Amino acid sequence: MHSAATVPAAPSSRVQTAPATSAASAAAPLNPGIVFDMVQAHQKTAALKAAIDLDVFRAVGQGPGDLASIARHCSASERGMRILCDFLVINGVLTKEDGHYKHTPSSAAFLDPASPACMASVAHFLSASALMDADTQLAEIVRNGRTYLPGQGSVEPENPLWVEFAEKMAPMMGPMAGPLGKIVLDGHNGPMRVLDIAAGHGLFGIEIAKQNTQAHVTGLDWAPVLRVALRNAEKAGVKDRYDMLPGSAFDVDFKGPYDAVLLTNFLHHFNKATCVGLLKKVRGALKAGGRAATLEFVPNPDRVSPPMPAAFAMTMLTTTAEGDAYTFAELSAMYSEAGFKAVTEHPIPMSPHTVVLGTA
Amino acid sequence: MHSAATVPAAPSSRVQTAPATSAASAAAPLNPGIVFDMVQAHQKTAALKAAIDLDVFRAVGQGPGDLASIARHCSASERGMRILCDFLVINGVLTKEDGHYKHTPSSAAFLDPASPACMASVAHFLSASALMDADTQLAEIVRNGRTYLPGQGSVEPENPLWVEFAEKMAPMMGPMAGPLGKIVLDGHNGPMRVLDIAAGHGLFGIEIAKQNTQAHVTGLDWAPVLRVALRNAEKAGVKDRYDMLPGSAFDVDFKGPYDAVLLTNFLHHFNKATCVGLLKKVRGALKAGGRAATLEFVPNPDRVSPPMPAAFAMTMLTTTAEGDAYTFAELSAMYSEAGFKAVTEHPIPMSPHTVVLGTA
Repeated sequence: MHSAATVPAAPSSRVQTAPATSAASAAAPLNPGIVFDMVQAHQKTAALKAAIDLDVFRAVGQGPGDLASIARHCSASERGMRILCDFLVINGVLTKEDGHYKHTPSSAAFLDPASPACMASVAHFLSASALMDADTQLAEIVRNGRTYLPGQGSVEPENPLWVEFAEKMAPMMGPMAGPLGKIVLDGHNGPMRVLDIAAGHGLFGIEIAKQNTQAHVTGLDWAPVLRVALRNAEKAGVKDRYDMLPGSAFDVDFKGPYDAVLLTNFLHHFNKATCVGLLKKVRGALKAGGRAATLEFVPNPDRVSPPMPAAFAMTMLTTTAEGDAYTFAELSAMYSEAGFKAVTEHPIPMSPHTVVLGTA
Repeated sequence: MHSAATVPAAPSSRVQTAPATSAASAAAPLNPGIVFDMVQAHQKTAALKAAIDLDVFRAVGQGPGDLASIARHCSASERGMRILCDFLVINGVLTKEDGHYKHTPSSAAFLDPASPACMASVAHFLSASALMDADTQLAEIVRNGRTYLPGQGSVEPENPLWVEFAEKMAPMMGPMAGPLGKIVLDGHNGPMRVLDIAAGHGLFGIEIAKQNTQAHVTGLDWAPVLRVALRNAEKAGVKDRYDMLPGSAFDVDFKGPYDAVLLTNFLHHFNKATCVGLLKKVRGALKAGGRAATLEFVPNPDRVSPPMPAAFAMTMLTTTAEGDAYTFAELSAMYSEAGFKAVTEHPIPMSPHTVVLGTA
C-alpha cells in the first residue's frame, strides 16, 4: 500500500516547482504523464474501433459535422458521441472547428469508408480478439519467450487468420505494391515468371503483372487464401496471367525457374535458421541473376527505431514461436548464407516497410 | 472485401512520392501510420503492465542493465525480455545505450519500485479489468451514452473500487496534495476545521493538517475507504487531528461549520444538477468566507486540449452514468448557482490537474 508517508517531498516538489512551459520540452526531467498516457493507451484502440463500428468517420465525411447530425447518423447518444469525437480529435484522427467535427487529411484518406484507401478493415483485423488476447498474457509470454498460442502460433498450417489477413489487410499493404513492383522489375518489361510466396491478398504479384504485361505470376499460399488472391487478380484484369500453387512454402515444389520471387511479410514469422532454409529453396528456384524480394519491417541496428518497424517485434513475440523484426544486417546475413550475391535495402517512403532485394 | 482494384492510385502514389523527410513533419498531408499506431495502442498498456508484473523496472534500476541480467532477475526468456525492453524504449520509459537498458528520469522516478514516487500501483489500478472491460463494449456505451456498468457505475454505494483507488492511486495524487494545500490555506495558520469529501487515501486532508498544525480534518468516505485514510493519517503523524465521517457525501450530515471543504476528484462523476446540489450542501457547511476546493481534470473550452484533462472524459463516459470532464466555465457556473462568490482556477504545474476554489 502506498501512503502519505511514502510520497516523497523531493520528486513531487520538483514536479511542482518546475515552470509550466517546461512540461512541453523534451528535456523535462520528470513526466508522470508519460506513465499515465501509456497505461491509458488501450482506450485509443477501443475508441478507434468503436468509431469505425458506429460509422463515425462516414458521418463526419458526409457533414455537416455537428454533434447532433453525427449522433443521429450513428444512432448514438449525444453525450457518448461528443466524448468519443473529442477523444478522436485529441488523438489526431479528427479536427474540431467551431464545435463541428471535420476530417484530417489522414482520417479522410484512411478512415472514411467513402475513401478507396480506407483502412477500417485493417483496424478490424489488428484488433481481432486473437491478437488482443495476448495483452492479458503478456507477462507469461515474455517469461516463456514465445506466443501463448500453441505450436507455431499464427503460422500453424491452414490458420484461418490468413484468410482474414488477405481480406482485411489489403488497404495497408496495397500502397506498398507499386513501389515494390518498381524495385523488383527495375525497368524489366519482357516475358518473366514471378513466384509470390505467402501471396495473401495477392496484391504484390498482381502489381507486377500490371506493371509488366508480359509477366506471369504464381501465387503460393493456403488454398482458401489463394481464393482471395484470385478474386483480386480477376478484378485487376490479370487473371489469365495468374496461377495458383496451394500449400506451404516449406513443403511444395516451387516449380521454377523464376525471374523473381516475392517473399512479403513472411520471414518475420520464423527464426533465422528457418529463414535461411527457405531462402536457399527460393534461390534454387531462381534463374541466375534472378531476384528475391522481401517486404519487411526493418528496424535500425539499435532495434528501437524507427518506432513502427521496431515495435513490430512485439507482435511477433505475441503471435509466433521464434519470429522477429529483423535488422538489415540480419536479413543480409540470411541472404548471404543462402547463397545470394548482392543484397540491397530499399525503404518505401512514407511507410514503415523496407524491400530487401537479393540477387541469385 | 478490399481488392487490388479498390486500392487507389491517387492516395497511394501521393504517399509513395512524398519525400521521406516530410513523414516527420506535422504538415505531412497523409499518414496511415497514425491509424496503425492508434490500432496498436493497446500493446502499450499491456507492455507496461507486463513490465511491472515482471519487475523489469527494479531490474533496470539495480543494473547493470544487460539483457541477460534483466531476464535472470525477472525469471524470463531473453527473447521475450529483449522485445519487451525494446518496446519500452520505443515508448520512452527506458533508454538503451550500447545494448544496456537504463532508466529515463521519468521511469526512475515513477516506475522503479525503489523510488518512493513509484506509480506501479496506479498502473495496476487503471488497468484493472473493471476499467478495461469497457473497451470491448465502447460502441454500445457510446450508443447508450452511459457506462456499461449498472446504476451509477463506479459511484454506486460502497463500490469496492474506491478502496482500491485509495490504496493504489496515492502515488499519482500525492504530488497534487502539496500545491492543493498551499492554495487552500493561502498562508492561513490558525485553528481551522477542514472537511475532506471523498477523502479516499486521505492525502489531501492530511496535507492540510501537515501544513497547518492547528488544522483539524474530517475525512468523509465509505467506511472501508476511510480505514485507508486513517492509516495514512497515522503514518503522517496527524491521526490525533483526523476524524472520520463514514457514508455518502449526499446523505450524511456534514456537521459544519468548516473553514474549508475539499472536493477532490469527485464532481466529474456526476451531472451538473447533482454537482450544484452537492455544492449547495457544501456551501451550507462553510463559514462565511470559507473555501471549497475541487481538484479536477479541467479541459479548455474546446474540450480537446490539453490532452490529458480532455481525454479524461472518456473514462467518465465508460464508468459513470452522467459524469464528465468539466471546463472551468462549467465548474464556475455550478459554483455560482450554488451561491459561491469568487471562483478561481489554479492549474497545478507539471500535472493534468486544476484546483478550482470557491469562496462562500
